[in-house]
Amino acid sequence: MGSVAPRETAKANVLVVGSGGVGTMVAYALEKGGRANVTAVLRSNYSAVEKGGFTINSLDHGDIRGWRPTQIRNTVPNVSLEGNAVIQPYDFVVVTTKNIADISPRVADIIAPAITPGYTAVALIQNGFNIEKPIIAAFPNNPVISGISYIGATEGPLGTIKHDDHDEIAIGAFDNPNIPSRVSESAARRFFDAYIACQNVSCAYKPDVAFWRWKKLLYNASFNTVATILRMDTSRMRVSEHVVDNLIRPIMYEIRAVAKAAAGVELLEEDIERMITIDTFQTFFKPSMLQDIEKGNFIEFENIVGEPLREAERLGVSTPTLKVIYGLLKAVQWQTMEIKGLVQVPQFNEPGLKYGSKQPRVIL
Amino acid sequence: MGSVAPRETAKANVLVVGSGGVGTMVAYALEKGGRANVTAVLRSNYSAVEKGGFTINSLDHGDIRGWRPTQIRNTVPNVSLEGNAVIQPYDFVVVTTKNIADISPRVADIIAPAITPGYTAVALIQNGFNIEKPIIAAFPNNPVISGISYIGATEGPLGTIKHDDHDEIAIGAFDNPNIPSRVSESAARRFFDAYIACQNVSCAYKPDVAFWRWKKLLYNASFNTVATILRMDTSRMRVSEHVVDNLIRPIMYEIRAVAKAAAGVELLEEDIERMITIDTFQTFFKPSMLQDIEKGNFIEFENIVGEPLREAERLGVSTPTLKVIYGLLKAVQWQTMEIKGLVQVPQFNEPGLKYGSKQPRVIL
Repeated sequence: MGSVAPRETAKANVLVVGSGGVGTMVAYALEKGGRANVTAVLRSNYSAVEKGGFTINSLDHGDIRGWRPTQIRNTVPNVSLEGNAVIQPYDFVVVTTKNIADISPRVADIIAPAITPGYTAVALIQNGFNIEKPIIAAFPNNPVISGISYIGATEGPLGTIKHDDHDEIAIGAFDNPNIPSRVSESAARRFFDAYIACQNVSCAYKPDVAFWRWKKLLYNASFNTVATILRMDTSRMRVSEHVVDNLIRPIMYEIRAVAKAAAGVELLEEDIERMITIDTFQTFFKPSMLQDIEKGNFIEFENIVGEPLREAERLGVSTPTLKVIYGLLKAVQWQTMEIKGLVQVPQFNEPGLKYGSKQPRVIL
Repeated sequence: MGSVAPRETAKANVLVVGSGGVGTMVAYALEKGGRANVTAVLRSNYSAVEKGGFTINSLDHGDIRGWRPTQIRNTVPNVSLEGNAVIQPYDFVVVTTKNIADISPRVADIIAPAITPGYTAVALIQNGFNIEKPIIAAFPNNPVISGISYIGATEGPLGTIKHDDHDEIAIGAFDNPNIPSRVSESAARRFFDAYIACQNVSCAYKPDVAFWRWKKLLYNASFNTVATILRMDTSRMRVSEHVVDNLIRPIMYEIRAVAKAAAGVELLEEDIERMITIDTFQTFFKPSMLQDIEKGNFIEFENIVGEPLREAERLGVSTPTLKVIYGLLKAVQWQTMEIKGLVQVPQFNEPGLKYGSKQPRVIL
C-alpha cells in the first residue's frame, strides 16, 4: 500500500461507475449516510445532471429535485495520471453497470484507471455467477465485494430516476485467494457500514456470498431472461400463470440444482415460491435485461445464464430449460451486434457460408 | 351422396378459403391448369382484389397484373342456404388459412357452410400434426386431403403477392376411418391431377402423408418457431451459425425422434441437414408464424409444436427443447390475446391472483 495512508476513520472516498437507476440510488444512499463522498461517473445523462441535478421519485427517500453527488465526472478518473493532489485514491470503486462479459470493453478494463493496486476495494453491485473472476485476475491484490441488490429503480428520461421497489442489499466479501480473507472482509464491512448509515435502506452484511448470489440468480436466470425473450413484464407472466408454471419455475429448479452442485448452496422450495411473487405486482416490473434490450443495449446474459449453464454442464447437472434460454439470448445479443455493426450479414449466398443454400433446391 | 351427380369428368368446383400468399398461388395454379373453377374467399383484401385483381410477382409464373379467380367472395358460401341454382356443391374446399387450434373460430367451423356432407373433399394445405382430426370429427364421411407446401409467397400490400420460393407441394389422402380408403385416395388423386395440370409447379402425389407431414415439421417446429420468438429471418439464423447449432438442429432431432415413435416415420440425418439450408438464402425468409405475429395475428403453434409435444410426452420421447419453445410461444399467443381483448390483466394485486404479491416484501 506504500505511501497511501490508512483512511479508516475518514469518510470513504467512493467512485460509483454506472449511474442509471441502481447506481444513482446507491450513490444517494452512500451520501445520505454521511460516511462517504461519492464521485459518480455519468455518461448519457452527464449534461442533464450537470445542469439540473437528478430528479428522484423514491419509495424510500421521497421526492428529491436537483440532487448531485459530491462530484460528477463524464469519464472514469485516472488516478495515476491525475495524481494525489487532484484525487485521493479511491477506497471503493462501486460498479453498478451491466456486466457484458462477451463484449468489449469489459468491467475490469472500464474501471482500471480508477483502481489503486492493492488498495481500492471493488464493490460489484451486479448480477451473475463468476463476475469476480476477471476482477481478481486484473487486480490480484485488491479486495472484491459482492453486492446483491433487490432495488427497483429505472432512469427515464435522462437524469430522472423512478425508484419504486425498496432498496434491499446484501453485502459480503468475495473470496480473493491472493490476499488474507480478513482484508477482504474488513473492506466489505466498511462498505456495509457506509451503506447502512443511511437509515432508509435495508442493508445486511451476509458473509455467505454464494448463497445470496445464487438466490438472486433464481430470479435473474428466470424472470429476467424470459422477460427479455418475450418483452414481457413479470406481472403479466404471473397473470398468465403458464409462463410461471412452464418456464419460470422449471428454470428456478434448475438453478437450485446447479447452486447445490457448484457451491453447496441449499435453496429451498420456499425460496423459489417467494421469488415468484417478489416483484410488487402493480409496478409491472420490467427486469433489467428487458430494459436494456428495449434501449437497444447489450444484455448481460453470459453471467446470468451462460456461466451457470457451463458450470452445470461441467458438473453434469441437467439444465435443459436454461440451455434453450441461453441459445435464444445469444441470438438476441447477436441481433444487437448486427445493429451496432459488430457482425456483418452478407446479402447473397456467399461460398464461405457454413449454412449457405445448396443449388438447386429440390424437395419432393 | 344423394342427388349430387358425379362430376369426375367436369372441371372441379373448388373453393379456396384463405387467400393470402399461399392461397392465391394455389388458386392461380388450379385455374391455370384448366381443370378447376376456383371461388376464392377473400377477407381483408376483398375490395382491393374486386377493384383491381391480384398483382402477382411470381418466380414460377412471371409478372401478372389484374388476375382474378373465376369468382371471389367475401364470406364462406353457404351451399345449403344459397341452393344448387346458385352454387354447385364444391368438389373441393381447399383450406390455406392458418390453423389456430386454440382460438375460435376453428377451421371446421369456418368451412362448415361450404361443405356438402359425404361429398366435398377438404384439402388442408396447412402445417402441423393432427390437423385432420377435428375435420373428420366435424365431417365424418368426407375425404380429407393433405397438402404439404414448400412455396414461399407473401402478401403485401393487400392484393399484391410476392412469390419467391418455388411452388412444391406433396399431396396425399389422410386416413379417414369412416370411409373406404379408396374414396379418400381417389379424391386426393383428383385434386393432384387438377394441381399438376399447371405445368409450372412441382406437385407430387405422395401416399405416405405422415412422412411428408413430419418432414415438413422438421422445418416448422424449428425455424418457424424460433423465428417467431426471436423475430429473426432464417438467413440470419444461418449466418449466426449458433442459432442453427444450438436451437434449430436440436429441435429437428427431437422431431425426428417423435416422428419415429408416433408414426414409424424414418427421417434421416440427411433430411435434417438439407432442411437447414432449404430456404433460398437471399430471400431472408420470414417463416409464416413470424409473418403472422408481425401483422398482430394469432399463431398456429398448437399444431406445429403443441401436438408433437403432447404426442412425445404420451410416448415418453425426450423433447426438452420443444417444451421450452412451446412455453414461449404460448406466451406469445397470450400477448396477442391480451391485445385483442381476450384476456384481461388486472392493474392491481387482486386477491384472486394465483401469483399475486405477498405483503410485506421482505428478502434479507
